[in-house]
Amino acid sequence: MSLFHSDAPPVRLPLLTRAGSALTREVEVLDEYGERRVIHIPDERPLTLYVDRRELVTLMTLGSEPELLALGYLRNQRLVMQVDEVLSITADWDVNAVAVRTRAGVEDFERKTASRVVTTGCGQGTVFGDMMDGLQSAQLPDATSARISQSLLRDILEVMRQQDSIHRKAGSVHGCALFRGTEKLMFIEDVGRHNAIDTIAGWMWMNGVDGADKVFYTTGRLTSEMVMKSAQIGVPIIASRNGVTAMGHEMATRLGMTLFGRASNRHFICYTGFERFDSEPEPQRAPVRVVSG
Amino acid sequence: MSLFHSDAPPVRLPLLTRAGSALTREVEVLDEYGERRVIHIPDERPLTLYVDRRELVTLMTLGSEPELLALGYLRNQRLVMQVDEVLSITADWDVNAVAVRTRAGVEDFERKTASRVVTTGCGQGTVFGDMMDGLQSAQLPDATSARISQSLLRDILEVMRQQDSIHRKAGSVHGCALFRGTEKLMFIEDVGRHNAIDTIAGWMWMNGVDGADKVFYTTGRLTSEMVMKSAQIGVPIIASRNGVTAMGHEMATRLGMTLFGRASNRHFICYTGFERFDSEPEPQRAPVRVVSG
Repeated sequence: MSLFHSDAPPVRLPLLTRAGSALTREVEVLDEYGERRVIHIPDERPLTLYVDRRELVTLMTLGSEPELLALGYLRNQRLVMQVDEVLSITADWDVNAVAVRTRAGVEDFERKTASRVVTTGCGQGTVFGDMMDGLQSAQLPDATSARISQSLLRDILEVMRQQDSIHRKAGSVHGCALFRGTEKLMFIEDVGRHNAIDTIAGWMWMNGVDGADKVFYTTGRLTSEMVMKSAQIGVPIIASRNGVTAMGHEMATRLGMTLFGRASNRHFICYTGFERFDSEPEPQRAPVRVVSG
Repeated sequence: MSLFHSDAPPVRLPLLTRAGSALTREVEVLDEYGERRVIHIPDERPLTLYVDRRELVTLMTLGSEPELLALGYLRNQRLVMQVDEVLSITADWDVNAVAVRTRAGVEDFERKTASRVVTTGCGQGTVFGDMMDGLQSAQLPDATSARISQSLLRDILEVMRQQDSIHRKAGSVHGCALFRGTEKLMFIEDVGRHNAIDTIAGWMWMNGVDGADKVFYTTGRLTSEMVMKSAQIGVPIIASRNGVTAMGHEMATRLGMTLFGRASNRHFICYTGFERFDSEPEPQRAPVRVVSG
């Protein structure tokens, strides 16, 4: 990336508490021959988010960063538009809850959420529409400033390959990371891709980090929601170990974002935003000299 | 499996229309050397579900079986308790919608959904609580009748290995299948695990298929929601190519279900419900005879 924005802290930081929890659990299993073994599995739990004492949603999460997750969730759902609207975030694993206090209080918050309470389940129907409205104003840098080269992306993939992870120990989680150049600023794993990127969104707000010169890495698929969330946090370049769906592809094209997928072991595909990508031609193999006799 | 239930069709079938759609799309990409290539990506689209003209939810789906998906969604969300409450299901890709007409009509339906409209986003918070209430009455067969042997599970994995799939062509989708013995009764791929199992739930209702003597296969992780949905369709044994989360493990233990994970290439792990699993000890290798001289 050619530009390095100044990452100034926000004017006012919310008061956070740290409340970690064990992230894996041992269980006894049988292998295919009926032999007993002990393995680790990811230990997710429900976390109910309260805003000004009003119950908003219950997220299933590994729970390593409940406050950042709560903050990022509010940010990516566009329920809080500025970090300084938040006064405090307090997580309490005794009751599996995280409580957010806002400056404007519950009345303002209820006005914001009133128009959304339409659907049930995992459809994300209403949020989708709201986010597209919001993204009309998303500020993504143009391709002359935010670029990525083949060698930088390969270096990022190498950093991720060496990353110690819950996935390596217990499987069944998704990882996300935020890079500035080859520097891994933040890495988080969770049972869902959405929680992981929401946590990164919360971390960026907490630390006043801008997205314009960053690369977002995820192990998960590049669906429309992941592309939208990345646009919302202002990161124009995404790399995934996984593939892309048609709506993720469309969304990225429309927003002028660059998507890389199938990215591992020095190989990858650039799906959209070719203009940000500085490729390097495949090195020619030295011709083989056949010596006869 | 030792028992084969009679799979009688339901008394009254809803009138369905078929409305297929292309499931993959060609896109031009660059490889890591900047060479242009054409690949396939899964072509998901939004599908808005209307019940008695009331908008319920928008699902992102590959869309190969929109009517079965709609029916299974209503079943697994416990919004329709019997298949014969549904009069007709009509999908229309011109407007990306599927319309369900119910026998009782919209007033009864609104009464059922009234208590759920609490959360936004992908939390599934309220549905979770509702489903646990409903599962108290889930009828799963005991371990003496619904069992699975090492060799049957290996045969199922071999069937899945040979399955032609969108995943093989385009990646980025999840597959689910329903087995009776080694017979694959239904196979479906979708962009989300939830849509895939919902579609199978709809297919079972449409065809009067009982779950007690079946095995449910999924490429996705065994989260609590997947375990709950499998219990809801009465299938006591699940096999996944992927792993399990702690809440999926807990839920399966509580419900007396058998979970297999990391299942591919003749290997697998049995996480819960050991009593349904007939393992076979690892074959001893014949001793190597060393002939000297």
